[in-house]
Amino acid sequence: MNSENAYRDLDGGEVGLVEYRDFLLPEPLRFENGRVLSGVNLRYETYGRLNATKSNAILICHALTGDHHCAGIYSINDRKAGWWNNIIGPGKPIDTTKFFVICSNVIGGCMGSTGPVSLNPETGRPYALDFPLFTVRDMVNAQAMLMNHLGIDRLYAVIGGSMGGMQVLQWGIDFPDRVERLLPMATCARSSSQAIAFNEVGRSAIMQDPQWDGGSYATGKGPSVGLAVARMMAHITYLSEETFESKFGRKRIEQNTDAQSLFDAEFTVESYLRHQGKAFVNRFDANTYLYLTKALDRFDLYDAEGRLEPACEKIRAKSLTIGFSTDWLYPPQQNRELVHTLLRCGKNASYAEIDLAGGHDSFLVHAPTLYKLVADFLSR
Amino acid sequence: MNSENAYRDLDGGEVGLVEYRDFLLPEPLRFENGRVLSGVNLRYETYGRLNATKSNAILICHALTGDHHCAGIYSINDRKAGWWNNIIGPGKPIDTTKFFVICSNVIGGCMGSTGPVSLNPETGRPYALDFPLFTVRDMVNAQAMLMNHLGIDRLYAVIGGSMGGMQVLQWGIDFPDRVERLLPMATCARSSSQAIAFNEVGRSAIMQDPQWDGGSYATGKGPSVGLAVARMMAHITYLSEETFESKFGRKRIEQNTDAQSLFDAEFTVESYLRHQGKAFVNRFDANTYLYLTKALDRFDLYDAEGRLEPACEKIRAKSLTIGFSTDWLYPPQQNRELVHTLLRCGKNASYAEIDLAGGHDSFLVHAPTLYKLVADFLSR
Repeated sequence: MNSENAYRDLDGGEVGLVEYRDFLLPEPLRFENGRVLSGVNLRYETYGRLNATKSNAILICHALTGDHHCAGIYSINDRKAGWWNNIIGPGKPIDTTKFFVICSNVIGGCMGSTGPVSLNPETGRPYALDFPLFTVRDMVNAQAMLMNHLGIDRLYAVIGGSMGGMQVLQWGIDFPDRVERLLPMATCARSSSQAIAFNEVGRSAIMQDPQWDGGSYATGKGPSVGLAVARMMAHITYLSEETFESKFGRKRIEQNTDAQSLFDAEFTVESYLRHQGKAFVNRFDANTYLYLTKALDRFDLYDAEGRLEPACEKIRAKSLTIGFSTDWLYPPQQNRELVHTLLRCGKNASYAEIDLAGGHDSFLVHAPTLYKLVADFLSR
Repeated sequence: MNSENAYRDLDGGEVGLVEYRDFLLPEPLRFENGRVLSGVNLRYETYGRLNATKSNAILICHALTGDHHCAGIYSINDRKAGWWNNIIGPGKPIDTTKFFVICSNVIGGCMGSTGPVSLNPETGRPYALDFPLFTVRDMVNAQAMLMNHLGIDRLYAVIGGSMGGMQVLQWGIDFPDRVERLLPMATCARSSSQAIAFNEVGRSAIMQDPQWDGGSYATGKGPSVGLAVARMMAHITYLSEETFESKFGRKRIEQNTDAQSLFDAEFTVESYLRHQGKAFVNRFDANTYLYLTKALDRFDLYDAEGRLEPACEKIRAKSLTIGFSTDWLYPPQQNRELVHTLLRCGKNASYAEIDLAGGHDSFLVHAPTLYKLVADFLSR
């Protein structure tokens, strides 16, 4: 997206070289479902400096397939910066000259934090389906232990989109005294039936791949076909019809001289999706995908009586929720509904809806409107 | 949907017992891609009586996974009537006391017409991927031969939704003198990039299932896992978010006393989709699904210069195009765009947009507004 160069209003430098750290939880982690695990690791990165009063820390929460590496590069040859490098950095909306920015791979993730791919010390094999079925609340709980470790009592802000937005909300609810500002984007107070439906198709593709083998595939192997199909489908839900039309339309792939097979990719959109599927398999774990999508499905801030108010009542932080007009996975109205409830509960809450073509993934793209909203909210 | 009982304005009787017929094309069928096939069969049904002047014939065109059985029952024990039984019958909007209604399984289908599952007389095995890559135009061309066989020079109307709507449009373009009225619903003048994307995910699921085996699986076997996943995903695109919320919401399946496996269906929407996938595998063929979705993808009435006018210019029939507000697979604007072009070309074209919650499949549900539009258009 070349977002850095195009971002002129708040143009800034780069975070530059970064490295991740591992935090081994000093005590066992108790999951929401009652399971207790010891030896739990959280992998994380930080950018900027924690001030003397420890009052300038911002926690970034990543989305489903994201990780702790949200800004900077690992080496000068690194061609790809962290996933939110366009918004995090010196002089950028999340300004690392002012803020100490922290991002950790969620508990249960497969990018370094303890999860289904980690070795179970009792068996010497990956936990796989023996890993506790974790929730967004568990993710947040583990992050809070990392904050303890870093000596941060109170966060200046918690920010994230999609599944990251769910964590932001959960932070506000579970640790009302430990966070001053919440900035959830492209998210919801509970997963919709349609969102669950899409996740279930992805899980079915994975679990019905013979290579899944009840989850007990060997490390580096696994249901690559099912995982790729799951990703291809999910990827459609991250974009908008508008993006598909403008990016691919009905453009055809230039034919090779070799005759193609009958159902080889014919349109560029097909090869794009196939590529997305293949690339994902190389970087992500299938069991982890099952667990994470299940955490999404179960995310539900409403109580048994269908009321969102009791959860919202707990929040003390001021909040800015951002919805995107073309997001049809977590549509604007779901974001609005949340803010309306916060306002009904008398909370300091505001809502912005940004008209961007990019669909659900709009929070990740270069967008001066978004940058300004974030920068302003953080400077208030 | 119990549509018959609820349909009071134009309440009518039932078509009752019906049977299908087979029409063996008297001459070889030349496909758009140049291939020629002899011994081609079209399976079809008719309801009502052709009048003496043969001027009351209506052709119904089915959607992707539909067939020739659009009304009536095969036996008195038949618990399920044809797929459009709610709209076709004595006194119903497509009134079989007035009209002679015809519906055939498309060429290339797997419900009795010649297609990839049919035996290739030269090899004694199913055609599988040796079947010609057919188009919507080929479907219509084969239907025209059936009309010749039935002695019908000119159709009173051609009606269909989704892929059926594409056939309707193609009829108007390819046989302008043989059709008086066109009634396409929930369709488009060309498949969008996003629609192609969804089809490609389905095809990938099928073709990467090891049981697909390059398309050469034995009859009755095949990539049942891939086909089920393809169907589950496609099924989501046929409904609307609204339907998912009202039909399933976040309702959970009542737990059995037996402990469930970790990723068993938890929400009712999950078991519903799994059921849809399984049921589909029992009635549909995987290679045929590849061919049919490819025909959808290639459907494009625009010319190389991106103009829809040249195709629309050919149409002489009057037309009523119906779009559905919650259809996000072939959204209203795609239907509108078509009608605007027809009007620019000076055609007798009208458009109706119906606000129904059912998404793309709205054309199949009980809907008095739709019934009235159809009945009025056919009586004009």
